[in-house]
Formats: sequence, C-alpha cells, structure tokens
Amino acid sequence: MAMESEALPLIHELSLIKQQQPFPKQLPFQLYKGKFGGFEISLMTSGVDPLHQVDNVATIPATLMTYLAIEKLQPELIINAGTAGGIAIKGCAIGEVYLSKGTFCFHDRRIPIPGFAEYGQGSYPSYDTADMAETLSLKCGAVSTGNSLDLLDKDMEMIHYNGAIIKDMEAAAIGWVCQLFAVPLFAVKAITDLIDDQAPTQEQFLDNLSMASQNLQTALIDVLNYLNQKFSN
Amino acid sequence: MAMESEALPLIHELSLIKQQQPFPKQLPFQLYKGKFGGFEISLMTSGVDPLHQVDNVATIPATLMTYLAIEKLQPELIINAGTAGGIAIKGCAIGEVYLSKGTFCFHDRRIPIPGFAEYGQGSYPSYDTADMAETLSLKCGAVSTGNSLDLLDKDMEMIHYNGAIIKDMEAAAIGWVCQLFAVPLFAVKAITDLIDDQAPTQEQFLDNLSMASQNLQTALIDVLNYLNQKFSN
Repeated sequence: MAMESEALPLIHELSLIKQQQPFPKQLPFQLYKGKFGGFEISLMTSGVDPLHQVDNVATIPATLMTYLAIEKLQPELIINAGTAGGIAIKGCAIGEVYLSKGTFCFHDRRIPIPGFAEYGQGSYPSYDTADMAETLSLKCGAVSTGNSLDLLDKDMEMIHYNGAIIKDMEAAAIGWVCQLFAVPLFAVKAITDLIDDQAPTQEQFLDNLSMASQNLQTALIDVLNYLNQKFSN
Repeated sequence: MAMESEALPLIHELSLIKQQQPFPKQLPFQLYKGKFGGFEISLMTSGVDPLHQVDNVATIPATLMTYLAIEKLQPELIINAGTAGGIAIKGCAIGEVYLSKGTFCFHDRRIPIPGFAEYGQGSYPSYDTADMAETLSLKCGAVSTGNSLDLLDKDMEMIHYNGAIIKDMEAAAIGWVCQLFAVPLFAVKAITDLIDDQAPTQEQFLDNLSMASQNLQTALIDVLNYLNQKFSN
C-alpha cells in the first residue's frame, strides 16, 4: 500500500505489528506483520519522504518496495490495495471498491517506436478475481497506472486505449516486478474520485480519502476471508 | 545505461567483460566490468524485455537497477550515461554532450496537493560538474525526467518549470535512489533530438542514436580520464 492513511484502518483491524526493517535502513518502507486465519500477512507501506513529509506514492517507490517484498518475504500472493480514480460513464461511483481484472497497463509511458510502444504500455496479468468478485459482490475492472494524480487529455485517451476503468499510481509498476518473479498479483482499489468528472481530482481525492480507506478495509477483510476459505482447505 | 546501443561503443572501447549476474536471475539487467586507470568500472544496462525485445527504458527498471548497483557493487560514484532530448532555444544542438548540473527533477509526476507537488517534482542533487565541464569543454545543464519519449505541452511546461534544458527518461529515478544512499551521481547525456523542434521526437531519436552514442563514448572516456586524474592523486 502506498499511503499510510490507506493502510491504517487495516493495520488496526488486524492488529498488525510494526517490524524492524529487513532491508537497508536508508529505505523509507514500513513493514507490518500479523496473522489472518491460516495466513501470515505482511503489509508494506511506502513510508514518508523526509523532505516533504508526504507518502512516497507513484511507481518508483512501488517498484523498489515490490522487489524487496519478494526478495525478503517470499510472498505467495501480492495484493496491491489502495485508493484510485474511476470512470463515471463506465459505472464507477465514489466509495465503491473494485478488484482488478485482465492486465495492468501504463497510460503515461508513450514511446512511439514499434516494440517500445507496447513495452511502454505494458501488460502484466492480474490474478483472476472473477469468482472472488461474484462471491463478495464487488465490481471488477482493468487498472491503468500513471505517475500523476491529475489527468491530461492524452492520459485519458491512453486509459481508454488500455481498456481500463480504474486509474491508479502504482499497480502496473508492481505488476512488472511481480511478472518477472512469477508472483500472482491483484489489486483492490477504493474509488476516491471520478476522473471524467468536472471537479478537480485533488479535491475529490482529499474529500473522499478517509471514507474510501474505510471501505477499502472492509473489502480487504472480505477478500482475506475469501482467500482463507479457498486456500486453507 | 538504459540501452545496449548506447553502451556498446564504451563496452568495446574499454574492453569491459560481461559478468554473471550478482542479483536474482529473474532480473533482466546486464553487468560488465573492467578497469580504467586507478578505477574499477562497472557498467550496467537495463537488459531486454522478453516479450517485445526492446531495452527496459524509463524510470521503473532504472530504479531497481540503481538499487541493485548500490547494494551489490557499493559504487563510490554513479554516472548515468545515455542519450536525451535537448531544448534548441536554450542552445542545445544534436550530437552535443551535456553534463548534468543542479538537481534532477521529474516532469510527469503532477500531484497538485501541497507537499505531494514538491515530492512529485523531486529535486535530487547532481555531483558538481562545473570544473569537469570547463576542463573538458562540455556544456552542462539541468536534467528533467519523464517516462515518455514524446512530449505533451504540459510536459514542456514542467520541464521549463524545472529549469531544465535536457529531457531524459531515467536520471531523476536514479537520483532518488542515489540520494537515499548518499551516493554521488551525475549524468552524461548526448543529444539525439530537439524537443522544441517540429520533427517528431522518435524520428530524430532513431536518426541520431548511433551518432550520439559514439559522441557519448568519446565524452565518457574524457570524463573517466578527468576523474582518474582528479582522484588517483
């Protein structure tokens, strides 16, 4: 999870315990551990930028954090949980929680040279969430990732080109690392803002962050119960 | 270095030897080693995407490669060498080689919330290249980084806001990791394209990549000679 405010409800609900860093002390990432049913749960957050006192959001910290999670914790499954934007005309509403489906792509890596274009777009598989979504009455949709919170017309064009209805800032970067190491990944994203709405993304995001993080936590508990039931037999 | 074609002239000139990977075999990065004067030189390239057979360019692989370089090789200094775009009205010409100065910033991480905005822009110091530039008759300028080869109007606005005259796809990501670990970093960038020119970036880039990579190699030898003279006494 990129942001502490997105993670805190779950950390409290599951009584996860903050760990000493199992990676170099220069890195800002935070690690919490606990148990849920038959699982060991490790929750990582990207930590705080020391200069600006904000969470280390976007693809660059997410890339390194995912590598370290895989190297140090050897997870059987990674869940990228967080808040995201959604497309209203595709049926998204603020506060709803989506599961990823299909592939994770980028909308801000435009490299118009054959081969590089497809590399830039990316296409990293999501774990199949169809049964989970039906069982838990959650919606699902493809996620497109970019490094900005706001959205240019070209970004929107690429999001449509990617067939995505959810827009986030980390998932495809995590997908790149997970694909290299063949670790299954899916995303759980609570909608804070509607990217095809007139209101500025940052205002919607800040207004809805706390509510969406609560909904995210509720859905994550459902997801963990589902996985526990599915895999503990 | 992100691209093999950027690195090959230097690999040949210095007779660098390809090494067995000192990092997990799932990672695509390539490592070459050799000696130059009193130095050990390690050259890393980002390797090839197995699906699209193109170099793993842009910030995500650069982030992970820099972390692994620091963790496994403990460098005293990192040089990010490659090709880049330049701003013609600021005096850049195709084929010229620039040294970085000032700070490395991003032009594609727009997060318009106080604190997050400055975090997104980034500001990671370049090693002071003023004397090197004067001694070697190279130009220097600030580098701005984004994940796309092409350029939107908003990207150009942010590059100007960053005070940059060189536009690349990796340096600031490398700068973020180097700053965390307090490893000095500067960039050496050969201009393949003029980003304020009418001609499409990708056409200029492909036309000039080979020539710029040769100029880059010549400048890198000068830079290594300068550093060898400065630090071997």
